[in-house]
Amino acid sequence: MERVPIYERERIDDLLTHDLKIIQSDEVFSFSMDAVLIARFCSVPPRGRIVDLCSGNGVIPLLLTTRTKAHITGVEIQARLADMAQRNVQLNGLEERIAIQHGDLRQSPAELGNGAFDLVTVNPPYLPVPNGDQNVNEHVAAARHELFCTLDDVVRVSSRLVRSGGKVAMVHRPSRLVDICCTMRQYRLEPKRIRFVHPRADAEANMVLIEALRDGKPEVRMLPPLIVYKNETEYTDELMEVYYGRRAALADPSNTSL
Amino acid sequence: MERVPIYERERIDDLLTHDLKIIQSDEVFSFSMDAVLIARFCSVPPRGRIVDLCSGNGVIPLLLTTRTKAHITGVEIQARLADMAQRNVQLNGLEERIAIQHGDLRQSPAELGNGAFDLVTVNPPYLPVPNGDQNVNEHVAAARHELFCTLDDVVRVSSRLVRSGGKVAMVHRPSRLVDICCTMRQYRLEPKRIRFVHPRADAEANMVLIEALRDGKPEVRMLPPLIVYKNETEYTDELMEVYYGRRAALADPSNTSL
Repeated sequence: MERVPIYERERIDDLLTHDLKIIQSDEVFSFSMDAVLIARFCSVPPRGRIVDLCSGNGVIPLLLTTRTKAHITGVEIQARLADMAQRNVQLNGLEERIAIQHGDLRQSPAELGNGAFDLVTVNPPYLPVPNGDQNVNEHVAAARHELFCTLDDVVRVSSRLVRSGGKVAMVHRPSRLVDICCTMRQYRLEPKRIRFVHPRADAEANMVLIEALRDGKPEVRMLPPLIVYKNETEYTDELMEVYYGRRAALADPSNTSL
Repeated sequence: MERVPIYERERIDDLLTHDLKIIQSDEVFSFSMDAVLIARFCSVPPRGRIVDLCSGNGVIPLLLTTRTKAHITGVEIQARLADMAQRNVQLNGLEERIAIQHGDLRQSPAELGNGAFDLVTVNPPYLPVPNGDQNVNEHVAAARHELFCTLDDVVRVSSRLVRSGGKVAMVHRPSRLVDICCTMRQYRLEPKRIRFVHPRADAEANMVLIEALRDGKPEVRMLPPLIVYKNETEYTDELMEVYYGRRAALADPSNTSL
């Protein structure tokens, strides 16, 4: 493992699977459960090429290396986050398997190639641009709000990057479901697997995992609900299994998607 | 209660709520859990006008009378089913609250009025027209397959019948979710509440309940999953509550939607 710089107010957390470590900063970016769940949910190709858009500190590429031998490109528009992601790649000695690209995803098809990928993953900003009063810091605002890219941008670019028959996996807010479905279909991405995440069995969903097939035919499977908590404080067994990656110990990790 | 004719191979079942009875026939049409669930799921206006499309033997109008004082029109294209629905209205003495109309729903806006209803309910045929080999009987085939109306017909007509700000509630197969969302939005019906029904907690959904608002803004709530069975043979408590209408005993039945 190389010596990589860690800056002030950053810390190194344990990803709790395959000895992966991750540099985070509450001030700038810390990964959330959303990223872990989409990294587990997506159907990964055993090899080939994957691109992760809105990659943040690179948590999704890091986790995907435990499930596939494919090469992974992470695209991040914020220089400070792209730098953190690059250090995370070095920290884990994954330079040959992950490339971090600092840039605007809207340029990605031109830079990385149309139809060049087997899988696109994305944990995009969830919220429309607010009306002027986002006085949180710029890094957090960009991760949460559609400042640098809209849902339409993300879906359109994903559709261009993926090959026909390839997949696009996204995590988002359930409130945007209709927007997501209609936008995906508009760009020839047909949703095929959807899973809702509910904080409790009797609560509304607060997250949706959705996987679409480029040029697929209509017909979608609605997977069992994923329930996060079994009581006030404890995770459900399934969430534990997913979150702490116990399934990753199975012989064929590509068969272990959620 | 009037004396109504019951024909050969028909039977009278108990709807198990408010002493409602229903004439059924396995040869022609028997209601399913789907109808009961959509009748409980939809947000009913306390009064006003409701129309139920693809009404079959009138099970949804019958059940809705326990939740609202609104007048309900049931539209059914098959003469034999429309006749059965009409006898069901008489059997329960509900002639002043339910009108059954034998006809093609595609003519309903012209016949019943554009924007004339506060709520449209519909349990449409789920399956596309098969390729020539549906050798089941014609009544069952029409209830299951899009022989007389497509999803596009149902959504377009619903959108015309309902007033701006009124609601359209549909039960369908989850596999059609993307079709439903995109078609609804195309006709200015914005999905606002969706609930998936899973046979077991760890099984894929086999039914979706969806309610849209005419001229509504985007943003949909994903309600808690409704689980049908808690083990091999027993219904969950919630399903029992819904199916056998125990909640119907509450003071304000319009507050008891699923």
